[in-house]
Amino acid sequence: MSRNGIIVTLLCTTIVAGAGCHSGPDSMSPSDAVSAIAAVTPTNGAPTILVGYYSLRGTTEKLAEAVTDGIVEVQGVNAVTKPVADITKSDLDTAHALILGSPTYFANIPGEMKTIIDNWAWKLRVDFTDKIGGAFSTGGNFTGGKEHVVISLLLYMLNNRMIVVGPICKEGEGGFGEIGASATTGADDAGLSVAELAEARTLGRRVARLALELTGNS
Amino acid sequence: MSRNGIIVTLLCTTIVAGAGCHSGPDSMSPSDAVSAIAAVTPTNGAPTILVGYYSLRGTTEKLAEAVTDGIVEVQGVNAVTKPVADITKSDLDTAHALILGSPTYFANIPGEMKTIIDNWAWKLRVDFTDKIGGAFSTGGNFTGGKEHVVISLLLYMLNNRMIVVGPICKEGEGGFGEIGASATTGADDAGLSVAELAEARTLGRRVARLALELTGNS
Amino acid sequence: MSRNGIIVTLLCTTIVAGAGCHSGPDSMSPSDAVSAIAAVTPTNGAPTILVGYYSLRGTTEKLAEAVTDGIVEVQGVNAVTKPVADITKSDLDTAHALILGSPTYFANIPGEMKTIIDNWAWKLRVDFTDKIGGAFSTGGNFTGGKEHVVISLLLYMLNNRMIVVGPICKEGEGGFGEIGASATTGADDAGLSVAELAEARTLGRRVARLALELTGNS
Amino acid sequence: MSRNGIIVTLLCTTIVAGAGCHSGPDSMSPSDAVSAIAAVTPTNGAPTILVGYYSLRGTTEKLAEAVTDGIVEVQGVNAVTKPVADITKSDLDTAHALILGSPTYFANIPGEMKTIIDNWAWKLRVDFTDKIGGAFSTGGNFTGGKEHVVISLLLYMLNNRMIVVGPICKEGEGGFGEIGASATTGADDAGLSVAELAEARTLGRRVARLALELTGNS
Repeated sequence: MSRNGIIVTLLCTTIVAGAGCHSGPDSMSPSDAVSAIAAVTPTNGAPTILVGYYSLRGTTEKLAEAVTDGIVEVQGVNAVTKPVADITKSDLDTAHALILGSPTYFANIPGEMKTIIDNWAWKLRVDFTDKIGGAFSTGGNFTGGKEHVVISLLLYMLNNRMIVVGPICKEGEGGFGEIGASATTGADDAGLSVAELAEARTLGRRVARLALELTGNS
Repeated sequence: MSRNGIIVTLLCTTIVAGAGCHSGPDSMSPSDAVSAIAAVTPTNGAPTILVGYYSLRGTTEKLAEAVTDGIVEVQGVNAVTKPVADITKSDLDTAHALILGSPTYFANIPGEMKTIIDNWAWKLRVDFTDKIGGAFSTGGNFTGGKEHVVISLLLYMLNNRMIVVGPICKEGEGGFGEIGASATTGADDAGLSVAELAEARTLGRRVARLALELTGNS
Repeated sequence: MSRNGIIVTLLCTTIVAGAGCHSGPDSMSPSDAVSAIAAVTPTNGAPTILVGYYSLRGTTEKLAEAVTDGIVEVQGVNAVTKPVADITKSDLDTAHALILGSPTYFANIPGEMKTIIDNWAWKLRVDFTDKIGGAFSTGGNFTGGKEHVVISLLLYMLNNRMIVVGPICKEGEGGFGEIGASATTGADDAGLSVAELAEARTLGRRVARLALELTGNS
Repeated sequence: MSRNGIIVTLLCTTIVAGAGCHSGPDSMSPSDAVSAIAAVTPTNGAPTILVGYYSLRGTTEKLAEAVTDGIVEVQGVNAVTKPVADITKSDLDTAHALILGSPTYFANIPGEMKTIIDNWAWKLRVDFTDKIGGAFSTGGNFTGGKEHVVISLLLYMLNNRMIVVGPICKEGEGGFGEIGASATTGADDAGLSVAELAEARTLGRRVARLALELTGNS
């Protein structure tokens, strides 16, 4: 983690307690998250986690920030967080892990985002082999395809030879994980709740820790 | 709808307002729902909607009751609501529509419930052709497979030659639907919210209205 | 079905026998199919089935033709078969049923096709309520996401308030259906086999028959 | 790989050539596979790959054998292949990786198999954290849910905190992978083809190689 990331961690206090999907220390509030992301820059000698998202109105971007918060809680990794449209071949080549986030358009990835990530493999010819992957999504309604988006992103990754994980919500015996992270954002459950942000952070931590381990840095 | 169902409808007041997944009149409170279900019995000459669920601790049963509330709001249909273990071949043969609900065990239908519905086709040799289907689920966490359960139930129905629909959340131009209904019930979002119950009712209404239409009773 | 379609039916002989997914008469050879499609034009007073596909190299187009063959075997329906890029709002508005077909790009719908169908709902503001839907796909490999594409197309339809079905492979007691139709087209199983084309025809027939029934024309 | 496994490898010749999903050496014929599996026993100091399957008539068992062939082609790993009903808590605890295979019952895992694997987590309280996972399936028809079974098994694994991969079909730039392995076994494409067996071996190799790497034995 970058120096700035460390500082943020020290300043923040745990805001989530009890059960649900948020194993480990939840050490950053949503408002801190935004500044933390900007501060995190890649550092030599540590694995880099690339968070790519597509966001029209900023909600999925906010969830990407929560994922990034989870990453920077893990010492010794770098986080790079960008809209997918801004991600370069170099970003993809140098990343050890890739976490993709998407809104839900008719139960799936928006066509414009899918075109961008299709081209990563098709035109940029990125070799994703053995990169670690995770996924998150937002969706207006409870059962409108948010989870299908998460699964679709994971299948994209498997087809591109990646290694795929979800957040570990509770560790140890009797623990459990999830497929990814998601948030309901429409009228029935507007905005991003503390628990939704915590799940996204848990996803970020999971991928960051595994990246550390698989690169021999843990 | 049965005579008792009509009476219940008249006694209840609308409890949900605003946007989200609950088109049409939302005319029944959760507490009324329980008594209404017991009161609804099949009537000759009207299509019957069978709601089958699996529930260990009663949460999925409560969501089944909300689905049933949606059904009985539609005049001229009968609702039969039962645990899947209690459903007979006769129940299945006489139903014009089938709405299945399940909790989420490791991102899918519980094995015990799957065994029961496997046997409906395999051993009871029920012919589901052209029956209308819909699905709902509960799950502890946001992204733990609730939606995969809904999709799995719908695919079970397609493999059994059924016709599959989801709730219509908003009608007319610019409207939208969903895949089914679901509720998050774990610590991060405990219990069944008013909006989750409304989505389940919307699913019930959708299936009931289509059953009326397809049987020439609308 | 148009006059030309009827003639084709009379001229052809059954080419598929035995079990598998091809219930009913399989009355058209692949070579006849191409000319039949061109001949089918919408007729007043009969339900119209719109087949939309995306195809770079023609394989998915061939599967679309087999789906169309299945449609025109059903007397009293019209088939319109077009690349999704050529489909207009008027085509969508007038269709009683919509069958979509797609190749598999990284386990999902190609971004370019998804953008087109996103815009049908988003920009053209088509109201798909109660239109009947079915889906098919092609994919290079056995387990590369072909089926996820079919499911994704069906979920798109459910989100757009459609009624969804799959082919009925075997009718009567002990019969079964499927989710849709698909074909493996890469080196491990190149081209479209007779059985793959038969499954696609079965899908077309299923949708056409249901459209007839639901429009009161059966 | 065990001593017996090595001997088998030397005796066999490559039976698959050309493109498709079978990267690396394909060094074992289907008939050799059966004897090889029986011969492979766990060896100390090497990662163990557990292959669990459910098979009524032996077809999924044969695909499990092909997966096992792929595992034993990788030097330095042990393969243990068993029906899921025979797998013990000790088998699960000691395995570094788990590959699950299932037939398709109504587009999903058979209820009986799901009950068994539900109980692995629920009653045996196995901690699957960071074990590597892969999945395969058989299904009677082209589009009957085989792939939904593979995805369902992978989601089971993610919910149990595992790390999930698919076969790498083609390595290097322009290469690709898949979600898992599957075979169509009904009348339309009876039995297991050479290419289907090759895909299953490729899955076994992928998991075995990653297990070696993640345990620091590569």
